[in-house]
Amino acid sequence: MSQPTPADLATRVRDGDLRFHELEDHADADVAAAARRLLVAEATDADLDPLGEYAFDADAVHGSNIENTLGGVQVPVGVAGPVTIDGGAGAAERYLPLATTEGALVASINRGCSVIEDAGGATARVTKSGMTRAPVFRVAGVAEAEALADWVRDNVPAMREAAESTTSHGELLDVTPYVVGNNVFLRFRYDTKDAMGMNMVTIATREACDVIEAETDASLVALSGNLCSDKKPAAINAVEGRGRSVVADATIPREVVEDRLHTTPEAIAEINTRKNLVGSAKAGALGFNAHVANAVAAVFLATGQDEAQVVEGANAITTAETTADGDLYVSVSLASLEVGTVGGGTKLPTQRASLEILGVAGGGEPAGSNADALAESIAVCALAGELNLLAALGSRHLSSAHEELGR
Amino acid sequence: MSQPTPADLATRVRDGDLRFHELEDHADADVAAAARRLLVAEATDADLDPLGEYAFDADAVHGSNIENTLGGVQVPVGVAGPVTIDGGAGAAERYLPLATTEGALVASINRGCSVIEDAGGATARVTKSGMTRAPVFRVAGVAEAEALADWVRDNVPAMREAAESTTSHGELLDVTPYVVGNNVFLRFRYDTKDAMGMNMVTIATREACDVIEAETDASLVALSGNLCSDKKPAAINAVEGRGRSVVADATIPREVVEDRLHTTPEAIAEINTRKNLVGSAKAGALGFNAHVANAVAAVFLATGQDEAQVVEGANAITTAETTADGDLYVSVSLASLEVGTVGGGTKLPTQRASLEILGVAGGGEPAGSNADALAESIAVCALAGELNLLAALGSRHLSSAHEELGR
Amino acid sequence: MSQPTPADLATRVRDGDLRFHELEDHADADVAAAARRLLVAEATDADLDPLGEYAFDADAVHGSNIENTLGGVQVPVGVAGPVTIDGGAGAAERYLPLATTEGALVASINRGCSVIEDAGGATARVTKSGMTRAPVFRVAGVAEAEALADWVRDNVPAMREAAESTTSHGELLDVTPYVVGNNVFLRFRYDTKDAMGMNMVTIATREACDVIEAETDASLVALSGNLCSDKKPAAINAVEGRGRSVVADATIPREVVEDRLHTTPEAIAEINTRKNLVGSAKAGALGFNAHVANAVAAVFLATGQDEAQVVEGANAITTAETTADGDLYVSVSLASLEVGTVGGGTKLPTQRASLEILGVAGGGEPAGSNADALAESIAVCALAGELNLLAALGSRHLSSAHEELGR
Amino acid sequence: MSQPTPADLATRVRDGDLRFHELEDHADADVAAAARRLLVAEATDADLDPLGEYAFDADAVHGSNIENTLGGVQVPVGVAGPVTIDGGAGAAERYLPLATTEGALVASINRGCSVIEDAGGATARVTKSGMTRAPVFRVAGVAEAEALADWVRDNVPAMREAAESTTSHGELLDVTPYVVGNNVFLRFRYDTKDAMGMNMVTIATREACDVIEAETDASLVALSGNLCSDKKPAAINAVEGRGRSVVADATIPREVVEDRLHTTPEAIAEINTRKNLVGSAKAGALGFNAHVANAVAAVFLATGQDEAQVVEGANAITTAETTADGDLYVSVSLASLEVGTVGGGTKLPTQRASLEILGVAGGGEPAGSNADALAESIAVCALAGELNLLAALGSRHLSSAHEELGR
Repeated sequence: MSQPTPADLATRVRDGDLRFHELEDHADADVAAAARRLLVAEATDADLDPLGEYAFDADAVHGSNIENTLGGVQVPVGVAGPVTIDGGAGAAERYLPLATTEGALVASINRGCSVIEDAGGATARVTKSGMTRAPVFRVAGVAEAEALADWVRDNVPAMREAAESTTSHGELLDVTPYVVGNNVFLRFRYDTKDAMGMNMVTIATREACDVIEAETDASLVALSGNLCSDKKPAAINAVEGRGRSVVADATIPREVVEDRLHTTPEAIAEINTRKNLVGSAKAGALGFNAHVANAVAAVFLATGQDEAQVVEGANAITTAETTADGDLYVSVSLASLEVGTVGGGTKLPTQRASLEILGVAGGGEPAGSNADALAESIAVCALAGELNLLAALGSRHLSSAHEELGR
Repeated sequence: MSQPTPADLATRVRDGDLRFHELEDHADADVAAAARRLLVAEATDADLDPLGEYAFDADAVHGSNIENTLGGVQVPVGVAGPVTIDGGAGAAERYLPLATTEGALVASINRGCSVIEDAGGATARVTKSGMTRAPVFRVAGVAEAEALADWVRDNVPAMREAAESTTSHGELLDVTPYVVGNNVFLRFRYDTKDAMGMNMVTIATREACDVIEAETDASLVALSGNLCSDKKPAAINAVEGRGRSVVADATIPREVVEDRLHTTPEAIAEINTRKNLVGSAKAGALGFNAHVANAVAAVFLATGQDEAQVVEGANAITTAETTADGDLYVSVSLASLEVGTVGGGTKLPTQRASLEILGVAGGGEPAGSNADALAESIAVCALAGELNLLAALGSRHLSSAHEELGR
Repeated sequence: MSQPTPADLATRVRDGDLRFHELEDHADADVAAAARRLLVAEATDADLDPLGEYAFDADAVHGSNIENTLGGVQVPVGVAGPVTIDGGAGAAERYLPLATTEGALVASINRGCSVIEDAGGATARVTKSGMTRAPVFRVAGVAEAEALADWVRDNVPAMREAAESTTSHGELLDVTPYVVGNNVFLRFRYDTKDAMGMNMVTIATREACDVIEAETDASLVALSGNLCSDKKPAAINAVEGRGRSVVADATIPREVVEDRLHTTPEAIAEINTRKNLVGSAKAGALGFNAHVANAVAAVFLATGQDEAQVVEGANAITTAETTADGDLYVSVSLASLEVGTVGGGTKLPTQRASLEILGVAGGGEPAGSNADALAESIAVCALAGELNLLAALGSRHLSSAHEELGR
Repeated sequence: MSQPTPADLATRVRDGDLRFHELEDHADADVAAAARRLLVAEATDADLDPLGEYAFDADAVHGSNIENTLGGVQVPVGVAGPVTIDGGAGAAERYLPLATTEGALVASINRGCSVIEDAGGATARVTKSGMTRAPVFRVAGVAEAEALADWVRDNVPAMREAAESTTSHGELLDVTPYVVGNNVFLRFRYDTKDAMGMNMVTIATREACDVIEAETDASLVALSGNLCSDKKPAAINAVEGRGRSVVADATIPREVVEDRLHTTPEAIAEINTRKNLVGSAKAGALGFNAHVANAVAAVFLATGQDEAQVVEGANAITTAETTADGDLYVSVSLASLEVGTVGGGTKLPTQRASLEILGVAGGGEPAGSNADALAESIAVCALAGELNLLAALGSRHLSSAHEELGR
């Protein structure tokens, strides 16, 4: 179409000819966004030029990743590593891309990686995998609730057929019923391969719910009944996992701890117990770690993951102990890390570049292996961050690091 | 200095003349980042050109927001609103900037804002405020722990003097002791005005800890003992708050619910009870809401907040009920929203633009009022998201919205 | 043996001839207990005669239920009901025996039962059943942890054979592995029929652990690794259940609510939402109810259950809503009610009498049915208590009831 | 009055002349209870004679501790100790009365006490004290909620005057507001001296609520809004305490650990970390201990405490570590132990005898000191149980102890 100018579009919105959210129907997305910046700047006196300096394809993201586009936000990306990760598919040396505005974070993780590398690298494993969606149904009462739970246990094949009819990749793994009065929650768990999979499992579960409503007297209340649980801190994810449950560990020789970290295995183990275990216990926490969320958030942002799912990513337990040989054993266990290497934000140019740094862009071979490797990389990244922060606390550098690097 | 080329720098790193993380000592930050991209691309076969298309000042962020800079990640920003917010400092009409790659999110919040605006806007209030840091001390035993707790209660002025000597803005509000065996956790709570304040309170608390160690037999184990709690889901934040505790609500006339949202107040109230209250209860959750984290993460990312603190932002409770007049009352209460309008990522150009859209860039007048207004805006943004998702669940549009908008 | 007198025994203890805890080796248990009362009274100036007025068989309980016997404590038992319970095995009218010293509790539950009976009785169902024990093993690291989890999934038959060799009744249902760093927790779940089953599953699991240690490199750290979880408030029980997961509900016609309870379905539903759902959410609770623990504790004490397991019994969610017909629907869902009708304290005379009142003494036909019926009875008892307290709060009688009845 | 026989009373009930719950209006409580036993036995075929063999004063407990009295349940009481407790009011040697039907429990705690005594005794301290009641009010919206919270902070004296007018002993310590949407929860905290205090604070808070309703537009929804939290597992109690927060510890010389417990400080510390800290963390627990609830339940039952409050008593954290000298340091911290030495069940003869054994019967001098000492005794009892069980796990005796003692 012949392009109007941003000013034209803006005028037509002011005149009531066009609606603010429909500009992309009347111009290229770049022009539409420019028109919106004009209108919003006018209304708010804001200088919105920086938002216009994006380099992604506005037409590609419009409707797929964003609506009412103004432009783009830019966040610095640093790199940590390389660090050798012995993962489920073998060992590899990986660089870790981190997007953050928190000074000292990349340096902290980088130092942790360096120490781990000196110790021969880290090991990581995905121990459980499955994306969940848990609709809630209303039934007449507890007798009918029990009956529905029984029906569900007996009719997984029918639900699977319906669910899998909506997806070429996803596989329904199991369905677990939970009864609360006249509410029945069904937690559907899927293998979504290299996709994080929320949309996939939502669509598939909707289809399975149609079968349930057709075959029983249950009435669907909500396609998500919060036992999924998506983007809320929840023990069900901490206990049973969501997305990938992934663990990483490393053994750091005593001399490396002493020479590189200027502390001892005993000091780190004590700090971990008093802070990450006892302190979190007293805090009524679901996260027993120092700052795993920092690593999760920074890699998520760099690689196009869903930032709101940092919530579940913080469901992690860090352990540290002195081995029989006097070395330091440190581990981190993330119960519910929801990641993908296809779909969502992974398609954007900068995000894809970060995935390429990790060597996990796009679908893996076999399917799911790229997302597994991404999960393992994040776990090792978190491990590096935990190791370095525990060591820094040990040698009391926390606030001075921020003083030097944070302003 | 006379600038080397990126290729020169890269060669010197390969030759072992320069260390990878020290390139900024030898060249402008743009050149250093370009050199790193060369080196990482070489090692990983990644195409890193997109990361180089950033528009912020690499020298300004180096060491302050990022280390080992590679470049920048770009995330689309959309806008929702305007929506009228009756906040603690009066009413204002605000646009809400949202950075996300999750299709349909901006549209969802925008629809919620539109419905709220039809209903006359939303009300929001900060009900509690204070950034915390909680060091853990080791003492000889429980008798000494009790004695330390008593000492702390009697010596707040001395600790305040020390703490406030490190900051021109922050004020120590109170110090609460918690005893677990021979561990004493002291939760320091500060008014940090318009700063989110983590660094400020860490530095101030370190100084107060020096007083404690000088005056008592207690030994500092870690400057953060996890009762803060930072970046972990923790009940102590859900109960006692951290950063801003902020609430927002709106009353939506029945006809607006029916005409605009195609459902009823009763249906929304029922869904909220079964999903957000009963479902979250059964899930062992700290978050009793539908997707508050989505709104928090998107505004955080747009405005330069700490993405890892989305974790605490998800500590929210949504309520919905039918009023005596048959209208819909809906509220959201965020216990621990940690936000600032100065420092950290708020200085970057695109992030500052988003703050300007909200009208809260930089320090407020009086101090703290901008961060309060930001918190209130996020709460209303979350309220809009909750309202729209509950309504969508009510009319069963959740997965079809994703089908239309999500790919 | 020829009986010494209590005074003789006491003298021999004072003289160092006998050890305080070995008196039953030298006299009947009644005499031994009398001697202990003499010795303890002497040391403490306490009047211990009341403890000697017990009516159980001291020899029978010695070593089986108690050691270092002093005598018995006596707690008043009241009765509520009868109430008609439509349970998994059909409907029955049951009286509910309650042991307590909290004035007004029996009256409260009795009023609830009476109202439920007016409404045609309650329905109750056991929706899940299984007693758990979760040992924790130490392995070399996360790679070995993953391997052990895989081994466990592949070797359930071998573990079952070992476990079931120790018991004539128990059946191993499943084994679920959970990995945290170099710790592997295995949650064994058993059908223990009419026994509460803690001892049974502990012994059986020990045998299964021997197989694991013989066949793998894992090292058993503790036979209970706290993922069981026994006698601690834990989300894993709230989510996955332990013992019986049991639900009960009733629909109370509006006129019964109004005439008998002097309130309305709407008021009760509102109180339940604000107090039991929103209030408990804000409290960071695992129990979303008013006082379910009161009913659980009182029936447990009357019927010889393990009082410490009241902890898990409080893991309950109460719901209340107005039906389409304007009546009151109320339910209670207990996630982890650990009960038995054989073994433990159920053998004592007074406790057995209480079980007989309920019609569930001894082993059921089929096995497990008596414990199911006991669980259903407790659930209905809790339902009656919830209904009455919500109604009392509605009509603001809580503290006046205590004033009248509590002193 | 001239006494009817039980058979007479029963006949009159059958004939509809008397109501089942009003028998005490027509006969002595012993006769009334006997009549009820006749009626219930008739309806259930139960042998209720054992329930009639109680030794308390049925008239005294009727209406005060029980209604619809059938008789009494009898539970064996054993004794552990003596153990020297260095408490807040000085050191004392105490015997610990324990009522239970769980074989091996008294022996376990007794062994723990013996080991502690060999080590010179235990230390215990009450670190915080206060019984809470938290009504929930409904207000128009969040603006009014903020206003109410402000009003409450400004009007503590008026609420105190009202509250304390109802009690000769209780003192209002503070009132903390929590806002969730249009709900305002006010957590009233009182010093209730030697009383557990639930009734006292309920009555006092009702009076304060009258002031609030008279002076503001808030409407009381429920006198308890579940932020108290009473008889539910709740983080607010784990964090902020309820009743007494009490800690106990002991240092056990290495040789005592080795000779008496047949294990090492290192083994006990490791088990505690893997089981009580990491295991409970993974379980989503509020209790980080092995079996504190056992000790709490058994002393509660022996001394006439409220058995349902075992729930809060299980909110405990156990720590164990090797000291610099190679000895074992072990502690237990109970956040919310609700105990009293006057009122409730403490007046019954057998319960009073148990309190006398502990030396804490009736009101203390100064007021509150007896309840403090009771709390400290329970904490040391729990410590002994933790120590022994950890040691037994270390030497793998758990299930064999049950095998020997449990059947």
